[in-house]
Amino acid sequence: MQKSILVLPGDGIGPEITEQAVRVLKAVTDGSDLALNFVDGLIGGAAYDAAGHPFPEETKKAAMAADAVLLGAVGGPQYDNLDRPLRPERGLLGIRSAMGLFANLRPAILYPQLADSSSLKPEVVAGLDILIVRELTGGVYFGQPRGIREVDGQREGFNTMHYNEAEIERIGRVAFEAAMQRNKKVCSVDKANVLETSELWREIMIRVAKDYPQVELTHMYVDNAAMQLVRWPKQFDVMVTENLFGDILSDQASMLTGSIGMLPSASLNDKGQGLYEPSHGSAPDIAGQGIANPLATILSAAMLLRYSFGRGDLADKIEAAVSHVLDQGLRTADICTPQDRKVSTTQMGDAVVAAL
Amino acid sequence: MQKSILVLPGDGIGPEITEQAVRVLKAVTDGSDLALNFVDGLIGGAAYDAAGHPFPEETKKAAMAADAVLLGAVGGPQYDNLDRPLRPERGLLGIRSAMGLFANLRPAILYPQLADSSSLKPEVVAGLDILIVRELTGGVYFGQPRGIREVDGQREGFNTMHYNEAEIERIGRVAFEAAMQRNKKVCSVDKANVLETSELWREIMIRVAKDYPQVELTHMYVDNAAMQLVRWPKQFDVMVTENLFGDILSDQASMLTGSIGMLPSASLNDKGQGLYEPSHGSAPDIAGQGIANPLATILSAAMLLRYSFGRGDLADKIEAAVSHVLDQGLRTADICTPQDRKVSTTQMGDAVVAAL
Ligand SMILES: CC(C)[C@H](C(=O)O)[C@@H](O)C(=O)O
Ligand SMILES: CC(C)[C@H](C(=O)O)[C@@H](O)C(=O)O
Repeated sequence: MQKSILVLPGDGIGPEITEQAVRVLKAVTDGSDLALNFVDGLIGGAAYDAAGHPFPEETKKAAMAADAVLLGAVGGPQYDNLDRPLRPERGLLGIRSAMGLFANLRPAILYPQLADSSSLKPEVVAGLDILIVRELTGGVYFGQPRGIREVDGQREGFNTMHYNEAEIERIGRVAFEAAMQRNKKVCSVDKANVLETSELWREIMIRVAKDYPQVELTHMYVDNAAMQLVRWPKQFDVMVTENLFGDILSDQASMLTGSIGMLPSASLNDKGQGLYEPSHGSAPDIAGQGIANPLATILSAAMLLRYSFGRGDLADKIEAAVSHVLDQGLRTADICTPQDRKVSTTQMGDAVVAAL
Repeated sequence: MQKSILVLPGDGIGPEITEQAVRVLKAVTDGSDLALNFVDGLIGGAAYDAAGHPFPEETKKAAMAADAVLLGAVGGPQYDNLDRPLRPERGLLGIRSAMGLFANLRPAILYPQLADSSSLKPEVVAGLDILIVRELTGGVYFGQPRGIREVDGQREGFNTMHYNEAEIERIGRVAFEAAMQRNKKVCSVDKANVLETSELWREIMIRVAKDYPQVELTHMYVDNAAMQLVRWPKQFDVMVTENLFGDILSDQASMLTGSIGMLPSASLNDKGQGLYEPSHGSAPDIAGQGIANPLATILSAAMLLRYSFGRGDLADKIEAAVSHVLDQGLRTADICTPQDRKVSTTQMGDAVVAAL
């Protein structure tokens, strides 16, 4: 089997961490019947610098043609003063929209070896394993009309949040399918006591649930969900929510683990394509120093093999190798305590490759 | 000085807890030069039951005429199937809008006596004292157009988020004024990398900051704010944000303390009127059992004296009395550990009155 992966290193620590993930992908497929073909591309600030746009036409074409995309991270302070359509984040929003990547899967898993990194008490987070399913191409992120206009002599910013039945239904199905592989619980998060958009969201989730009688569906308001994630996060299995709520809650949930440098993500469309990237950002403050944690990107590569190429067996191998290097006490600076052995980005990559 | 307070007990535990707060207000003003006149009114489900509407015209008139409003809580499962405009929450949104209560102040304070209640590690939350300033009458809560419509044969829910310059500026001023009385730091939370509404928000905050050169202004994206509140909440002094983000983040921040039964809130308009209510909800599951924690409502009454009647001296007395009963080891069920003395709602009220 021959598959192509578009690699978009992006900005900040992006290039360093994707480099390690590509090495791991090569090592795990070496001698297997899966032949990977890597293509490099530009996105974010790096694309702006080289081509004048954060999501160049060429990258778009390459993305549409690829079987999967592996992305590092985008953004950096040097781009803060660019016009909105030219900023690095626009590259990310652009590729999500162009590829139709409506389903963002963000696991928040606490690695037992890193339990101490959490700011929460050990008993609250031990064994934490939540999957957040975030709708990624709708809601207020892409809603029209939007802008800044003048009304009665003063400026007013406005945005539109919307979802139609089909958009809600398809993300609902992704969440229920995921729950079937897990603990069979879906918590749908909305703000149905205030927003009509959420009212429709809730109705459709209830309808989708009928097709999954084995899965328990609950509903929670987003403010309560933010509280419950702090109070007792282990009550959750799969959480499904719209774009903006998912942005907030998935970041909150990742931070519960204390080691966001460990958390991968997958963004899928309905053609079986996917974009895989670490949950963390581009960390411009430590870029180029060779100290960034490549594990979230390496674990994103595992998700890529599992979800886009149907190779759960190879994904398992990568995940086991990551667990093994943690058992060995190897840590990049972000997750390192005085008892551990501090390693560089490349050394961490070496260790994972060796463990495979 | 003669002042009138409209008391709106509302639903669930509302009546029990407001009763204790009224007792405390009477006790603390007894023999002082402040004469309080209490008027009772209906809101939420209780108002629907008695008058067919969650925010009856009579309550509206009474609210406009009062110097301040003390509210318990609204909502309960028996109202879940009512039409949207008749649900208890609509009463709350109605009074906020009618009185123009644009500034919601929600402190998240960790009482040293209750440090163990938090799900976070003691060193992460010890001494926590954040003030969240939430805009309360704008944004997607009240934006038009909104609704559920049919487009191309399928239903679509839509809502509008908007803010104009004046709305942003006035809430900004509240935050900066509050920061001047505190640690002189304001963190403005937005999603300016995605939303035009936030872009204007950020611009106006920067403009307002010019009038407060002693205050340090920082900006944070809402997803990052949700992470930072988990990672290291003590980095914050005053956080200011729009209605929906404030709803989510203020609930998250309250839960960091582990004792949401202790947290008051104030909602102010530009005429010096205010509505004061506990940060927690109506807790229908324990209503009528006499076990609810009245302290958040009692502390809301302290805020009432401070903000609406300029009587910080009396507010200090109430706060000291609350601290004293905690020192005595008195606890309602929600904050009680085996070492403490468990008391009822009324006994807690007795103890605060005795401590005054
Ligand atoms: C960079 C930004 C536009 C993006 C988002 O808000 O979706 C990021 O926060 C994320 O979660 O991937
Ligand atoms: C009950 C609900 C409408 C309300 C809100 O979202 O504002 C509540 O969550 C709050 O924070 O006071």
